[in-house]
Amino acid sequence: MPKKIGIIERYAEFLPITDKTPIVSLNEGNTPLIISEALPKEFNLDFKVYYKFEGLNPTGSFKDRGMTMAVSKALEEGYKAIMCASTGNTSAAAAAYASRSGLKCFVLIPEGNIAKGKLLQAYRYGAKVIQIKGNFDDALNLVKEITDSHPVKLVNSINPYRIQGQKTAAFEIVDELGKAPDYHLIPVGNAGNITAYWMGYKEYKEHGKNKTLPKMCGFQAAGSAPIVENRIIENPETIATAIRIGNPASWDGAVNARDESGGLIEAVTDEEIKWAYRFIAERDGVFAEPASCASVAGLIKLVKRDYIKPGSTVVCTLTGSGLKDPDIALSFDDEVITVDSNKDKVLDAMNLKL
Amino acid sequence: MPKKIGIIERYAEFLPITDKTPIVSLNEGNTPLIISEALPKEFNLDFKVYYKFEGLNPTGSFKDRGMTMAVSKALEEGYKAIMCASTGNTSAAAAAYASRSGLKCFVLIPEGNIAKGKLLQAYRYGAKVIQIKGNFDDALNLVKEITDSHPVKLVNSINPYRIQGQKTAAFEIVDELGKAPDYHLIPVGNAGNITAYWMGYKEYKEHGKNKTLPKMCGFQAAGSAPIVENRIIENPETIATAIRIGNPASWDGAVNARDESGGLIEAVTDEEIKWAYRFIAERDGVFAEPASCASVAGLIKLVKRDYIKPGSTVVCTLTGSGLKDPDIALSFDDEVITVDSNKDKVLDAMNLKL
Repeated sequence: MPKKIGIIERYAEFLPITDKTPIVSLNEGNTPLIISEALPKEFNLDFKVYYKFEGLNPTGSFKDRGMTMAVSKALEEGYKAIMCASTGNTSAAAAAYASRSGLKCFVLIPEGNIAKGKLLQAYRYGAKVIQIKGNFDDALNLVKEITDSHPVKLVNSINPYRIQGQKTAAFEIVDELGKAPDYHLIPVGNAGNITAYWMGYKEYKEHGKNKTLPKMCGFQAAGSAPIVENRIIENPETIATAIRIGNPASWDGAVNARDESGGLIEAVTDEEIKWAYRFIAERDGVFAEPASCASVAGLIKLVKRDYIKPGSTVVCTLTGSGLKDPDIALSFDDEVITVDSNKDKVLDAMNLKL
Repeated sequence: MPKKIGIIERYAEFLPITDKTPIVSLNEGNTPLIISEALPKEFNLDFKVYYKFEGLNPTGSFKDRGMTMAVSKALEEGYKAIMCASTGNTSAAAAAYASRSGLKCFVLIPEGNIAKGKLLQAYRYGAKVIQIKGNFDDALNLVKEITDSHPVKLVNSINPYRIQGQKTAAFEIVDELGKAPDYHLIPVGNAGNITAYWMGYKEYKEHGKNKTLPKMCGFQAAGSAPIVENRIIENPETIATAIRIGNPASWDGAVNARDESGGLIEAVTDEEIKWAYRFIAERDGVFAEPASCASVAGLIKLVKRDYIKPGSTVVCTLTGSGLKDPDIALSFDDEVITVDSNKDKVLDAMNLKL
């Protein structure tokens, strides 16, 4: 039976590593490709839909794929610390891999408005969190300045090893399906992931693993859709915090993936995202963070205008675990029924109509 | 490359299913066996330690292994609904698999003292949560009464399919190591899991997959240690809520696993659990819920009295994800440093001594 090894060991020949690279791994990757039972039923679809559920990576998001690469290379290059500006998934992944490698990890965040819950992983993995009196751009600029002049490695998404690691998700999909999907739907925030998947599908095709390439379909949140609107968004807003980014680092990569693949990048509203978030949990048993669900919200949009050809295979990336964002999970008006400790009262409350 | 299939498909020949069993799966199992880098260094160990990290199952705990079995069988047997008394991981797993199968899911909880965060998964997966004016035992008794007399299947751990599914974790360990470990350390709450692992190791040995069997070493929380104290604990107390159980359903199974394997069942304090919880996150990059860490706390105890033989292979089960319990994760006095948005101020705060 197969070993559950990390992505660097599994895909070494496709990654920029050497025999001397010390591999810092938490056995990330090899996440499940879960077929949707509910979407085809609900929408009478004549094609297959899979969720690539990246929430089951070690820190609960796809960021682990890139971080195993970034941290392994930082260690190889002799750095003693890593640093990032992040209020969420990147800081969690950076802190976890730093913890394991023995590198120090510094996380810079803008002051105010940061739910401590978003940072709880950074803290628990032992990162040093520093809040600055400035905004996110200020934090990222300080990280760049400091890492330029000190033996501290920047691990934000401009670190090129991140995308190298992330492309392995495309490899896994091809390995599982025995081919590339016809359409790959994916949330777009900083746009590194759509860039990485496209790189992965193309590279794997060069090696003869897949004969075809998917149309890459990216989805931004409507209040945070710089690529769709073709302009930097100064104050991006969306409940999907993991893709609340006004000026994506991999903007060009995303546009290139869209254009080369003949796909699209569109916006979905917070309402559409919330609908998808609830639907896939309540009907398919898959609980993903809101940003993840932009891909499924996008699918519904495409279904409504018959964009997807019958008989196709569609993969939707779900970028992170629903447990990452308990505030949203608890923000619905869930009913709390209280009854006496009595069989008939409980049966009444159950309202069994079987 | 291997497909990431669920445990029923993967281990069909070892499970009580037929060709007619409708498989309800979220591609659970195949969780990583992560080697500890930090424990051997910290304690100068002359043996290998692995974490079997069950927090990377679809709903974030080992319960998914049992629930895929219990729900598949409930569906096969024609039930239209499932039911459990649970305030935590069981309700999350039950709700998720019910969601996927189309079965209704009812979760009974005792009134008061239930953090809504513990139930957020049950809600999001669409279960109906009913609070009763009574305690946990009352809730469980009502579930038994109702499921005895109505077409609703009980999926608490007295459902025998749960243990059948859970035993597959032992299979995976043997498949990965190519042998059974010498010692298997595991948290003990309701005691179904230690029972299941022991069953798994024994069955796999009968099939010639492993030649030896591990010593099963179970660990209860000191304020909730009925098996250690050999008496029912009326009001069990521990921060490790997932093992806060005063009268384990699989008490006999646990004692049997201990005695047949020549192992032990002991108690660890909340302080020891907390230490392990922080250590494995801060030093090995693995973030598990407090109950999980009873196994690692137990290891330290055994190390201190030289219980483990040199050259051994030790596996510690980590039962659930650290994200399951944000309250504990945020209960530490984590430092929030705030500085001006200025390179020198940030560098001061970083206190770089590289």
